Amino acid sequence: MSRRLSAPPDYAALLDKYDTWMFDCDGVLWQGDKLIDGAVEVLRLLRERKKQVLFVTNNATKSRRSYKTKFDHLGVEAHVDEIYGSAYATAVYISSVLKLAKEKKVYVIGMAGLEEELRDEGVAYIGGTDPVDKTLESFSLERFDLDPNVAAVVCGLDTTVNYTKYSKAFQYLTRNPGCQFIVTNEDSTYPSAHGLLPGAGAISAPLRYALGKDPVSIGKPAKTMLDCIQAKVHFDPARTIMVGDRLNTDILFGQAGGVSTLLVLTGITLESEITGPNASTIVPDYVTSSIGDFRSA
Amino acid sequence: MSRRLSAPPDYAALLDKYDTWMFDCDGVLWQGDKLIDGAVEVLRLLRERKKQVLFVTNNATKSRRSYKTKFDHLGVEAHVDEIYGSAYATAVYISSVLKLAKEKKVYVIGMAGLEEELRDEGVAYIGGTDPVDKTLESFSLERFDLDPNVAAVVCGLDTTVNYTKYSKAFQYLTRNPGCQFIVTNEDSTYPSAHGLLPGAGAISAPLRYALGKDPVSIGKPAKTMLDCIQAKVHFDPARTIMVGDRLNTDILFGQAGGVSTLLVLTGITLESEITGPNASTIVPDYVTSSIGDFRSA
Repeated sequence: MSRRLSAPPDYAALLDKYDTWMFDCDGVLWQGDKLIDGAVEVLRLLRERKKQVLFVTNNATKSRRSYKTKFDHLGVEAHVDEIYGSAYATAVYISSVLKLAKEKKVYVIGMAGLEEELRDEGVAYIGGTDPVDKTLESFSLERFDLDPNVAAVVCGLDTTVNYTKYSKAFQYLTRNPGCQFIVTNEDSTYPSAHGLLPGAGAISAPLRYALGKDPVSIGKPAKTMLDCIQAKVHFDPARTIMVGDRLNTDILFGQAGGVSTLLVLTGITLESEITGPNASTIVPDYVTSSIGDFRSA
Repeated sequence: MSRRLSAPPDYAALLDKYDTWMFDCDGVLWQGDKLIDGAVEVLRLLRERKKQVLFVTNNATKSRRSYKTKFDHLGVEAHVDEIYGSAYATAVYISSVLKLAKEKKVYVIGMAGLEEELRDEGVAYIGGTDPVDKTLESFSLERFDLDPNVAAVVCGLDTTVNYTKYSKAFQYLTRNPGCQFIVTNEDSTYPSAHGLLPGAGAISAPLRYALGKDPVSIGKPAKTMLDCIQAKVHFDPARTIMVGDRLNTDILFGQAGGVSTLLVLTGITLESEITGPNASTIVPDYVTSSIGDFRSA
């Protein structure tokens, strides 16, 4: 059962207990473009107490650099090397784990941030924001040239997704032998400033359905994201806590990584999902209303 | 185990045994825009023998009228009242089973053929081919007005599908109480003239994934399609045979409807899927290479 935090000593005890604080961002630090009340002060408090602060986000539409701009814009202190996004982790996975041969490339369904991370990791790609694929014209296989060097299809949230992109990705995945199917993350929805919209998991669902095959998923709750963090920074899992708003991504991710978990109720998960007879089987170690509650520590 | 047809008496026996012949079209009578060798002659033979001929297709991009034009163009005799498409069956389902109140409407992800069938059945709709929704511009909830009269989302194959359509459909399905989620059919792929492309099931997969909920599916193998046919024509299931190229749509459909089934190998299903240790559990009554084989009857 989760421990519900409410009194100042609860928050003070957690500050003492954990040295490394991993934060999901959307629904934890902000909702769309609106900061969660108290988030800036609490992050400042953690830094004053010499805590290691990491930001672990499944948002693959932004590179770490463009994510940093979002932090700046909202007035939240953050450094690029503290930010772990699923676009970055995907690029690292392709360059370090798949290790594609020099002439190989990936076909991208995704946005500029994903392309930026791929470029930074030296991964060649086609598709993505290429205007040729940003089209609602009919797609014809007769006019399509299959590039035999496409060795993986990478799919993230893409708000310009269309039938041409799905059709090309499907050709690579079915006609190029061994072509890998990778998704940045499997979030079914994402919280925009004005409500929920279909997420990266939904965007990749047509390929999953047409292929009858699940992709390799990089973002939370997959271990790949943690491997990526562990390759860059040192932390003691026993003194680390993951703070998130989503049971099936953030909390599962923390549990799979052997770190403690704290659920905040400012995002996707509702209080009703963690209490009562229909409560989820995913049980965080701690629950609090909002990250802002730590101001009382 | 299926009976493999090969000798002239096999074909003659089937002609004697069945009075009503239901045909899938793509992969059975034609592949894309290319007629299957002998299909025209065999259909003519059936008509000479006074057989009832019906065409039962999951293709929801065309209305019965536009499907008739395709038959004409390929030189295949067909009459509009012999054609049962999933667009038509979907429109009939909404008008006869859902019976929406007068002011209610559906939001369409789909093409002109689906719209035409909805209009013919007196079902009001928005979306579909409306140029407002044919866009790759970013979708913003802030600028979206939820129409409270949308009581169902209908999704079929739509080659101009995009994030705006998915986002609007998702809003109706999550914010309009009781909004129904209906798909014309669940085919994972469809056979274009030059190869397989993602099908209607793939196109609706983002909504299914984002909602975590399965839709009501109208086309084969669902019984809804058969109900629609039975409401219009009389046939004796014991003397009826369904001819198709796909086990999980055509053959399942025939079996669910209590009619006999014949698999042809000119479409999706390969011989290797019906023989050997990894054969499908869906077993047609008869198998033949091609509908053209019946010329020897």
